[in-house]
Amino acid sequence: MKYLLLVAHGSRRAASNDEVRTLAHQMNTLQDEYDEVGSAFLELAEPMIPDGIRQAIAKGANEVVVLPYFLSAGRHVSKDVPAEVDSVQAEYPEVKIRIAPYLGSATGIADLLLEQARK
Amino acid sequence: MKYLLLVAHGSRRAASNDEVRTLAHQMNTLQDEYDEVGSAFLELAEPMIPDGIRQAIAKGANEVVVLPYFLSAGRHVSKDVPAEVDSVQAEYPEVKIRIAPYLGSATGIADLLLEQARK
Repeated sequence: MKYLLLVAHGSRRAASNDEVRTLAHQMNTLQDEYDEVGSAFLELAEPMIPDGIRQAIAKGANEVVVLPYFLSAGRHVSKDVPAEVDSVQAEYPEVKIRIAPYLGSATGIADLLLEQARK
Repeated sequence: MKYLLLVAHGSRRAASNDEVRTLAHQMNTLQDEYDEVGSAFLELAEPMIPDGIRQAIAKGANEVVVLPYFLSAGRHVSKDVPAEVDSVQAEYPEVKIRIAPYLGSATGIADLLLEQARK
């Protein structure tokens, strides 16, 4: 069972966290590559990343792709997210957990921004 | 003369600000709708938003599209960026300044994220 986990920073503002959850639901409906797409947060919102991965495994995932919903390659992307993932990987060595490249590194982002500018 | 100004939060980490500047350069090469694409920051990096708009006007822009490089519709997008734009609009009432929808609201973002997950 393949699980895609969108991970965001998390905000004190509930509506911002809900935007992330809604996006994960929307991604779920757009694809059939993963059995489920869920969301988790580095801080300030639930589930936090380790629990998000544990919940995916509890649902039967033997492969989890962690996708950082971040714009820049700062400490959160380079250190904090990998550290959270590593802690759960140590608990479940049999599960394949992979971190995908962060959103800001997507080559298509320039075109998407140019589209936004037209709106 | 039409100018597109990509506006980001700004970071203490110089490399994150440079990622934004590089993205603006890349957008510039990808399009011919705007005479120039530049970047500016809400805080922590230069130019800040009002100066970014003033520099565009000094280059001859009579139309400036401000494009928020933000993922969620928090206070920065709903209040801070519009306040900075309003202050410059008052200085130059003859220039058309418009704020485009923020990146996180782009309908194409779900597909872009699914693409990233495959990398």
